[in-house]
Amino acid sequence: MRPTMKDVAAEAGVALKTVSRVVNNEPGVNAATADRVRAAIERLGYSRNESARVLRQGRTSSIGLVIEDVGDPFYSGVSRAVEDVAIRHGSLVLSGSSAEEPARERELVLTFCARRVDGLIVVPAGADHSYLRSELAAGTPAVFVDRPAGPGLDVDTVLCDNRGGARMATAHLLAHGHRRIAFLGDSPTIYTAGEREHGYREALGDLVDERLISMAHPELDRVRADLDRMLGMDDPPTALFTGNGRLTMTVLRALAGRRMALIGFDDFELADLLSPGVSVVSQDSAGLGRVSAELLFRRIAGGGGPAERVQLPVRLIPRGSGELPPEAPRSS
Amino acid sequence: MRPTMKDVAAEAGVALKTVSRVVNNEPGVNAATADRVRAAIERLGYSRNESARVLRQGRTSSIGLVIEDVGDPFYSGVSRAVEDVAIRHGSLVLSGSSAEEPARERELVLTFCARRVDGLIVVPAGADHSYLRSELAAGTPAVFVDRPAGPGLDVDTVLCDNRGGARMATAHLLAHGHRRIAFLGDSPTIYTAGEREHGYREALGDLVDERLISMAHPELDRVRADLDRMLGMDDPPTALFTGNGRLTMTVLRALAGRRMALIGFDDFELADLLSPGVSVVSQDSAGLGRVSAELLFRRIAGGGGPAERVQLPVRLIPRGSGELPPEAPRSS
Repeated sequence: MRPTMKDVAAEAGVALKTVSRVVNNEPGVNAATADRVRAAIERLGYSRNESARVLRQGRTSSIGLVIEDVGDPFYSGVSRAVEDVAIRHGSLVLSGSSAEEPARERELVLTFCARRVDGLIVVPAGADHSYLRSELAAGTPAVFVDRPAGPGLDVDTVLCDNRGGARMATAHLLAHGHRRIAFLGDSPTIYTAGEREHGYREALGDLVDERLISMAHPELDRVRADLDRMLGMDDPPTALFTGNGRLTMTVLRALAGRRMALIGFDDFELADLLSPGVSVVSQDSAGLGRVSAELLFRRIAGGGGPAERVQLPVRLIPRGSGELPPEAPRSS
Repeated sequence: MRPTMKDVAAEAGVALKTVSRVVNNEPGVNAATADRVRAAIERLGYSRNESARVLRQGRTSSIGLVIEDVGDPFYSGVSRAVEDVAIRHGSLVLSGSSAEEPARERELVLTFCARRVDGLIVVPAGADHSYLRSELAAGTPAVFVDRPAGPGLDVDTVLCDNRGGARMATAHLLAHGHRRIAFLGDSPTIYTAGEREHGYREALGDLVDERLISMAHPELDRVRADLDRMLGMDDPPTALFTGNGRLTMTVLRALAGRRMALIGFDDFELADLLSPGVSVVSQDSAGLGRVSAELLFRRIAGGGGPAERVQLPVRLIPRGSGELPPEAPRSS
């Protein structure tokens, strides 16, 4: 159904090669003939098959992006930034969500590779990326974002300063008089969760109490049970540090209006409208996406050199909840 | 650098056609030879170029998705649902954000078409889609989501019940004793904004007061100025109906803690944690994505019949703000 170059040639009454020259902006066609070809293209509604063309050039002008979940605001921020950079490079983005499942991450990455994407941006769910080795050797560059690749893979990596941010949050709570500070983090198998736990431990030093650390998948029931257990202790925490945006919201729900010092890792919409406003360590999700995409396109363009490891800064935004003093001891 | 089928043939000591038969699961190769070919594939790390293969079959096993902004939670919900359906159909998703610019929507759509996507899902920014006519005629199906296509385009459309939802919200406020209900909506050139305004007008009937209607791009300063003007009237509104999620948040910021009856179109994370909880008309963004993707893949598989127009229901979630009674007249 689609008109082909042959149809255009017939319509314009010229040779196929002439049409090809006009379409590809090659010299050797006089102006009047070129005009006739362009008019025929217009009349027939001909459009070049870009997928076939770029494939003949050994490229697909597309990159593959694997994130955890595009429905999560943090990752959709990354996606949007990657998309913007890709468009500037004339490239399209194939994207997929791993849902934190290593098998799905692997399947998506290999599917993208089989489609011969020009490069990959991966937020890894798993810890073993040896399956990527042959693709990297075949010349498909990859950039890992938010979390590093598993052992033995020498690829560019763009991370946030997770440890430094957690240290900053914990030190902020210490500076406001807290000594009993609980950490509610995501599963310790997740790189960022582990780094944030480290930063928390470094800032607390001798004040670490293992009973005030809870790390698991952030479900409301589990978080509520852990909070109840901690708050029922003889020396309960007076402040909370939550390890990611989803956990912060879950903890706020579990607290059900109870006033308590709190800092969350990750900023979120409306954090300023809650009462008190929620203090957070803010990561630059757009920066993660932009820097990693720019790095990838430099590699695609042939940029050599050893693998880079970029670390983006985070910042603390005080809004009230992280500046609450410790509650006076209960008079019971 | 990448091993080719020829390399595999040499490695296995068989003809190229034999390798091709094994790779494509065609009959005519005895078991021992097939094993030898598979072993050679394994040793060399050969992988088939799926982009070339599907292209030879006249498909790309990819669809194009144009939304307003993947960074907006409503659209990232649509994206995630489309992605899930696409993966089940062995298809990948090329996506792009139009940023509400008709020119960018058109450019993205035409880029996807030039790449010969098997189909398109479009949240239109513009009102003229005549540029798509030749693509539709060439057999590329398209589904329009959230907003209908411009005149003259006969395509499948999946919408939410914008008008009904706005009627429901306004009727809810009327039932709680309000007679002065303001509407703050997005620009009237946006289809959904116009539909919601209609629903609001239908429910209010004779109570409509043009001075209580504000429709423009939702910027904090503009919204704040309009609210100030309305609240300074002799007979100010006692309730607000906001036309989308972004507007609801902007209005909540402009109100700066002032207690006022309010219902927002679009649910949002943490609406339940504000005080009072924010009553909303909730749209099913995942449902929009899922239904439109399923419709598209039915068309891609050759499903005929006239263009469908699916309307998804919305629901009102009362959380407190929409159930506040009118304030007693100020004693000034």
